[in-house]
Amino acid sequence: MTFAATVLTLYPEMFPGPLGVSLAGRALEAGTWSLEAIQIRDFAADKHRTVDDTPAGGGAGMVLRADVLGAAIDHALAAHPACPVLAMTPRGKPLTQDRVRALSTGPGVTILCGRFEGFDERIFAAREIEEVSLGDIILSGGEPAALALLDACIRLLPGVMGAASSGAEESFEDGLLEYPHYTRPVEWEGRTIPEVLRSGDHAKIAAWRKQQAEDQTRLRRPDLWERHIGARVRSASGARQETKDGS
Amino acid sequence: MTFAATVLTLYPEMFPGPLGVSLAGRALEAGTWSLEAIQIRDFAADKHRTVDDTPAGGGAGMVLRADVLGAAIDHALAAHPACPVLAMTPRGKPLTQDRVRALSTGPGVTILCGRFEGFDERIFAAREIEEVSLGDIILSGGEPAALALLDACIRLLPGVMGAASSGAEESFEDGLLEYPHYTRPVEWEGRTIPEVLRSGDHAKIAAWRKQQAEDQTRLRRPDLWERHIGARVRSASGARQETKDGS
Repeated sequence: MTFAATVLTLYPEMFPGPLGVSLAGRALEAGTWSLEAIQIRDFAADKHRTVDDTPAGGGAGMVLRADVLGAAIDHALAAHPACPVLAMTPRGKPLTQDRVRALSTGPGVTILCGRFEGFDERIFAAREIEEVSLGDIILSGGEPAALALLDACIRLLPGVMGAASSGAEESFEDGLLEYPHYTRPVEWEGRTIPEVLRSGDHAKIAAWRKQQAEDQTRLRRPDLWERHIGARVRSASGARQETKDGS
Repeated sequence: MTFAATVLTLYPEMFPGPLGVSLAGRALEAGTWSLEAIQIRDFAADKHRTVDDTPAGGGAGMVLRADVLGAAIDHALAAHPACPVLAMTPRGKPLTQDRVRALSTGPGVTILCGRFEGFDERIFAAREIEEVSLGDIILSGGEPAALALLDACIRLLPGVMGAASSGAEESFEDGLLEYPHYTRPVEWEGRTIPEVLRSGDHAKIAAWRKQQAEDQTRLRRPDLWERHIGARVRSASGARQETKDGS
């Protein structure tokens, strides 16, 4: 089944952009995913094709009109009723790899990209839209965030990454950051690959990597580490509970 | 002064991509920023232009060689010695708008984009590299993240956003999410613009927006809200301290 990506944007020429190259580009050609970049301006009601207006109550910038956004979203929903509609916005829920994985197993995604000061708030009350954020930075529009989100989804589609890279051992997949990697040359600028990785002892290597992943996470991302520990405790007490109930 | 963006990548054809359009594209043409996308493969030492090798200790995927990366980084540093070198990696420090703003006031940025399983760890010990992350999702490479980071920096360069959008009143700039926006039409699908925004009372409008920004932040991002409250308490006690010392 083809993963249907629809982007509602004032700059359809930004797509596929980087997604036309490499893994995503080959998968697009192969029909693993499809892409339609829809010009929001096509849904303006006046002859000047106006999409925005000044903010009610005053202030800088321009706001995208709810009526124009509504018509554009309805058009996308008619074509792909089963695809969730996401809006890229800094106030949205921060994207996680779990959400990306869930999206990638679905029929596709419709992404609404803002520009200027943002969207007329009423669009979020009137349509079912999931507001998501790529991180706590402000972009000139939703388009770069949409490209990143689509890239993250596409690489998980069946057949896109070779069998060599399953994605199962990477950062966040078990709630931890990834362990460090090394490759040839064995010595570079006086620095050598850690002894254990050259030992051929698979159990020792696995233990070292697990320890490194835990250390890196604790050191770099205490927030992830606390969640990881919390999940471990919950799952352990859940297991005990089951045993008790079953005994 | 021109903001010098240098990207080290295996896919230089992904750049400028979306950054060649709209605000960033016009600023690139105007010379507000410059872009050089450098092919990492040009720094391979063998005739096959090999950039990667299998991971020491076994496992899936390929790892980018430290010697090749080192040569590419040294080349970029020679051209732009004052530009910080950032690597886009999921284990990096999550990007913030504060970091983006600091970068945008500097001479530029050199961005190292990974592909495959990642970088040989020794590169981070041997060169001064700031590892940054766009969010807790996994991309097929650093390129979409680099595009987003550059977009965030470029819009803050002098003259890029018109005078109409100063960027001073947006999400994160004061540690809060932005208040909601509305624009014409006054009524749409039975939903009206909040009365207060049509009152013409600027003090009331400002108070409503502040309250909304606080409510949105508390509701949507308790993590940001706690930081905001903490900063307010610290700054208040700092102010008291100063008064005490000065009295």
